[in-house]
Amino acid sequence: LSTSHVSPVVHAPFMTEALAEARAGLNEGGIPIGCVLVRNGQIIARGHNRRIQRSSVILHAEMDCLESAGRQTAAFYKECTIYTTLSPCAMCSGAIRLYGIPRVVIGENKTFVGDETLLQTNHVHIDVLESKECYDLLQDYINKNHSTWYEDIGRE
Amino acid sequence: LSTSHVSPVVHAPFMTEALAEARAGLNEGGIPIGCVLVRNGQIIARGHNRRIQRSSVILHAEMDCLESAGRQTAAFYKECTIYTTLSPCAMCSGAIRLYGIPRVVIGENKTFVGDETLLQTNHVHIDVLESKECYDLLQDYINKNHSTWYEDIGRE
Ligand SMILES: [Ca+2]
Ligand SMILES: [Ca+2]
Ligand SMILES: [Zn+2]
Ligand SMILES: [Zn+2]
Repeated sequence: LSTSHVSPVVHAPFMTEALAEARAGLNEGGIPIGCVLVRNGQIIARGHNRRIQRSSVILHAEMDCLESAGRQTAAFYKECTIYTTLSPCAMCSGAIRLYGIPRVVIGENKTFVGDETLLQTNHVHIDVLESKECYDLLQDYINKNHSTWYEDIGRE
Repeated sequence: LSTSHVSPVVHAPFMTEALAEARAGLNEGGIPIGCVLVRNGQIIARGHNRRIQRSSVILHAEMDCLESAGRQTAAFYKECTIYTTLSPCAMCSGAIRLYGIPRVVIGENKTFVGDETLLQTNHVHIDVLESKECYDLLQDYINKNHSTWYEDIGRE
């Protein structure tokens, strides 16, 4: 079965780990967005947003996770699925397209909708789990940290 | 005058600095692609590709330069022009879109054409200088390092 045909239940354990990364970020004082990269049913890299922690404008959760996965071939990325608690922004969607990751599983896209349409146009399969846990965790943070959140998505 | 109306001559000193960054990368053993970020006629950040040097998959020249510029507001980015020796890939173009940088000046796009059309669709102004210096520097590297180059653009 390809990921495109599996049920959300199969995604749940991986999204739980992405959510654990989001919580780890929050515990560091960061924006709670997390990510894991899965290949052959195994988590091979983890990451979370580190804007605050590293004073970084590029370490979104997905970027942190891809960096953690290290230098890989195009063939390697083709076998990967990326799990992220939030719909990936233009930068992270661009990285997913650059490296040819074919599947993205999104925790929630109520808070923010990234480049989902562009990803789909580029034949990236997307699943949105509509996770209340992912949504509530980020919403609670945003309610307390408006300006940091807007900075993270390039808005005022 | 907005950047969109200025002549290539005005861009030349900034592209020369982006090219100096590319050469600095080459001297470190890296892929020679460089970038500078300009605001109010001043270079405020510099960067170059650090795939080899840092074993990084996210530190393309543009990403390294944006990271070097630090955390900034959307209003700040709106006043910036990014100069890069090579047409920006999907990831770097996504970062440019995320942060709302309105102008991109490209040294050359013969070696590689990134998301130029997508940037223009998103109202980012693009100038391509067709710089032989940028092209020759990268071509010479690629001729000697095929696999590293293909890795950097997510291909086999
Ligand atoms: Ca599906
Ligand atoms: Ca022009
Ligand atoms: Zn992102
Ligand atoms: Zn790039």
